[in-house]
Amino acid sequence: MKPLICVEDFQVAAYEKLSRDALDYYRGGSGDEETLSANEDEFKKLRILPRFLRDVSNISLDTEIFGDKVSCPIGVSPSAMHKLAHPRGELATAQGINRVGSLMTLSTLSTSSIEEVASECPRLIKWFQLYIFKDRNESLKLVKRAEQAGFKALVLTVDAPQFAVRRKDLRNNFQIPAGFLANFDHKSARAIQNLEYIDAGITWKDLTWLTSVTNMPVLVKGLLTAEDCLMAIEHGAKGIIVSNHGGRQLDSAPATVSRSEMKIPIKKLDPLTSLS
Amino acid sequence: MKPLICVEDFQVAAYEKLSRDALDYYRGGSGDEETLSANEDEFKKLRILPRFLRDVSNISLDTEIFGDKVSCPIGVSPSAMHKLAHPRGELATAQGINRVGSLMTLSTLSTSSIEEVASECPRLIKWFQLYIFKDRNESLKLVKRAEQAGFKALVLTVDAPQFAVRRKDLRNNFQIPAGFLANFDHKSARAIQNLEYIDAGITWKDLTWLTSVTNMPVLVKGLLTAEDCLMAIEHGAKGIIVSNHGGRQLDSAPATVSRSEMKIPIKKLDPLTSLS
Amino acid sequence: MKPLICVEDFQVAAYEKLSRDALDYYRGGSGDEETLSANEDEFKKLRILPRFLRDVSNISLDTEIFGDKVSCPIGVSPSAMHKLAHPRGELATAQGINRVGSLMTLSTLSTSSIEEVASECPRLIKWFQLYIFKDRNESLKLVKRAEQAGFKALVLTVDAPQFAVRRKDLRNNFQIPAGFLANFDHKSARAIQNLEYIDAGITWKDLTWLTSVTNMPVLVKGLLTAEDCLMAIEHGAKGIIVSNHGGRQLDSAPATVSRSEMKIPIKKLDPLTSLS
Amino acid sequence: MKPLICVEDFQVAAYEKLSRDALDYYRGGSGDEETLSANEDEFKKLRILPRFLRDVSNISLDTEIFGDKVSCPIGVSPSAMHKLAHPRGELATAQGINRVGSLMTLSTLSTSSIEEVASECPRLIKWFQLYIFKDRNESLKLVKRAEQAGFKALVLTVDAPQFAVRRKDLRNNFQIPAGFLANFDHKSARAIQNLEYIDAGITWKDLTWLTSVTNMPVLVKGLLTAEDCLMAIEHGAKGIIVSNHGGRQLDSAPATVSRSEMKIPIKKLDPLTSLS
Repeated sequence: MKPLICVEDFQVAAYEKLSRDALDYYRGGSGDEETLSANEDEFKKLRILPRFLRDVSNISLDTEIFGDKVSCPIGVSPSAMHKLAHPRGELATAQGINRVGSLMTLSTLSTSSIEEVASECPRLIKWFQLYIFKDRNESLKLVKRAEQAGFKALVLTVDAPQFAVRRKDLRNNFQIPAGFLANFDHKSARAIQNLEYIDAGITWKDLTWLTSVTNMPVLVKGLLTAEDCLMAIEHGAKGIIVSNHGGRQLDSAPATVSRSEMKIPIKKLDPLTSLS
Repeated sequence: MKPLICVEDFQVAAYEKLSRDALDYYRGGSGDEETLSANEDEFKKLRILPRFLRDVSNISLDTEIFGDKVSCPIGVSPSAMHKLAHPRGELATAQGINRVGSLMTLSTLSTSSIEEVASECPRLIKWFQLYIFKDRNESLKLVKRAEQAGFKALVLTVDAPQFAVRRKDLRNNFQIPAGFLANFDHKSARAIQNLEYIDAGITWKDLTWLTSVTNMPVLVKGLLTAEDCLMAIEHGAKGIIVSNHGGRQLDSAPATVSRSEMKIPIKKLDPLTSLS
Repeated sequence: MKPLICVEDFQVAAYEKLSRDALDYYRGGSGDEETLSANEDEFKKLRILPRFLRDVSNISLDTEIFGDKVSCPIGVSPSAMHKLAHPRGELATAQGINRVGSLMTLSTLSTSSIEEVASECPRLIKWFQLYIFKDRNESLKLVKRAEQAGFKALVLTVDAPQFAVRRKDLRNNFQIPAGFLANFDHKSARAIQNLEYIDAGITWKDLTWLTSVTNMPVLVKGLLTAEDCLMAIEHGAKGIIVSNHGGRQLDSAPATVSRSEMKIPIKKLDPLTSLS
Repeated sequence: MKPLICVEDFQVAAYEKLSRDALDYYRGGSGDEETLSANEDEFKKLRILPRFLRDVSNISLDTEIFGDKVSCPIGVSPSAMHKLAHPRGELATAQGINRVGSLMTLSTLSTSSIEEVASECPRLIKWFQLYIFKDRNESLKLVKRAEQAGFKALVLTVDAPQFAVRRKDLRNNFQIPAGFLANFDHKSARAIQNLEYIDAGITWKDLTWLTSVTNMPVLVKGLLTAEDCLMAIEHGAKGIIVSNHGGRQLDSAPATVSRSEMKIPIKKLDPLTSLS
């Protein structure tokens, strides 16, 4: 195997190891994948203006978020079903993140459970990603389990009231393997597979409700307009994750890194506002 | 055959089924096909800014146009000679549109007649596309037949006083098969084939005339400037179809979706103004 | 041979017929050929905004220039040595232009002489392209011969005080064949071949001089800035040919069709100002 | 071998002659090589607006810098280890530059020593490129040797407090050959190879210090913002070399030729400000 020097090397290596189903699930975007490719293209167009003759003999990327120290201002976003890639699933991911001292966001659709990840890496800063289900008690149970397991924040995904059409998955007739979702019993898992659980009717009031039932700070993930960011903060969010769901939900949404549509001054936003 | 998941899949399937003549007639644009490709390229550059945490548990694309209910705000534009693709021609098209509840615009150059389409799909919302001929009575006869057959609007095409050079058709020496045009008797059909019928001398007054001889609302198809849109409304049009004829008439015309040249405020325009 | 439907068809046919030397001489630009390709790329980006419902039953491109009627507002620019392509050289070109009723500009470096072209096509509107030589009398002789032969205007090329490096010609070690230049005797032709004739020291005063020694209107060819256009008119030019010498002189000059650098209002310019 | 007519010809010839290690060392950039390719792409987009009918019969590119006459306003930037390409290393480079009358900047990491180059080409205008080492005396020794050898200016490189990751070198496991660096004894050379020498803690004060210990003018190389250019001049620099280190240091830095980020009026800058 080629030495793994850059992200692309890992990508190439993964292409050799993964099953077609898993590969397409991970790399595929929605629709024509215009937003998927815009994410990368726009990112490459960013230019950094370096300043020089500063003393850089001692440099550190350490930072703090919600009172927790992390080794760099980059955390790991939630993504589903790591066992598609490796039998140890999110436990392996947690180990890796733990080693570099960053933070991990565990997906609701993880294949290692909340409790397993907590027990594997008790000191790792862990956040939990949540959908609001039609049955609010189901959501509440997950919140309480995350709290119990020492997770430090909730990440509410709001850009998937309906799941988008991802053509690669359709062509593969991709199905979530039975028993794969570790945070649910058999019955709930099947409902989730059929997308019967997620509530397409949630509104800003549900965000307020969520902040009222937990002591964890709540971040809203998936916003793409300044207007929605302000509304999130008004309704109790402690942070925002700007995201187009990796180009996997609304195709034709702007690239995550594009700031052209953020029409309100960034300083109006909470400094915790982050980018993913 | 591959499953038909997206528009491109249909395109690939069509490439396998169609004769070279038909394929080139349908896919070819005029001149260097700069406008043809700009139509698609500019469309892909559009970005949608989604807002979230709205209740989307009950959504509907139903809308109303000229008092008729349609299942979505997208209708089918006129295109000529569907029998090049399938022996049932426009009857098959009408059936498909009927099934999804949208509206159909039948071309003057159709290969199923006004009356055949009306009898096949009596409940389908149907519009009729018209050229103004040198012999106004010939045009008037078509208008009356459309009215009689229950068509709901007229679409006057104004961007083809001369037909553009489409090189693919020239290379194929493409000819309209004898007896193909279903709305005309043998003699008229031959005149149309030779482009002797269409009047290159029509002006805005002819639009006013057309609106005076029918109770159907008249839409003007093919406008690309705000100035022309305003003139159309002044001369009695009830709607506008912004179009560059699918890149098949004036090559170097702007992409249909490009609004950069629409220099007057869109709110000055009738809300029926649509895009095709 | 494929039917010749568009410019590209002629280009492909020429590639098959021409010698490598001739092909490269005609198609090559200077330097990296950035300006050569910009000429075509920028041209394709132009968009025409059509207006409709005008009476176009009788249309004509006829126009008049310097009192002469031509069939369209497009004339043929000077280009050197047509006998590289065909043994009848500029006589064949003149015949073709004569047939469509446009106008021809004969190059100083033509391979059919002033008098031959005049005698072949006496009614064709002919202009003569001129360089100013170190020996002004040599230039004057050409002017008088053109006048005598019924040419209607002079086109003074000003963008080639030094000839640019065209790499294709260098690689081919391209040489003008002996006796090829029809407007010169053997001795002068050799001097021109060695580029000893053209005066790199000419200034605006030489333009004024040229206008004083002929009754023909003088156009200046090769200007790319509004400032130079205004100076040309002040010094007696009756017309301007905006040109970057077909991308064959200064590589990195703007595309001919690009107007971004023309910073003075176009209405300040003489309406004869044209584009080539 | 093909005749060497343009830069690309030399590049192709070099590809045939160089070892893979050397080739990759010379052509490789840092990271994704976005800045490396932007350097060339942006340069090609520059447009020159030529003015005509000026007397250009006597033209000269001669100019003067720091009181020295050079044959053109283009000098040769420092680059490391020419012996990777040819056994005569920087001596051969010096000879070539000497022949055209331009100026040479010798790299600290040269494979021919300060004294060797000076003795080979005593009349060539030579500048010396410097890093500031943790041990200031080591730097000072180089400064004095350059002064002694008749070098005319110092070029302080400030954009490499840490060396960037160049993936091609990593993949080749590229190592500086032992004994290759001609300006250092064995021990120092090894320290430099291990990057133990260069001081990541230098600040603007060190620039002031450097200007105080030499009579040679000091240029600062590697600045990319107007703000840093002004600071350089305030701290004693006599010239600035705008550079992103050939796309070999911070990937995502703007193209060298891009002026979009230079937000202060260029006239505030010393006229010696140059571009490389």
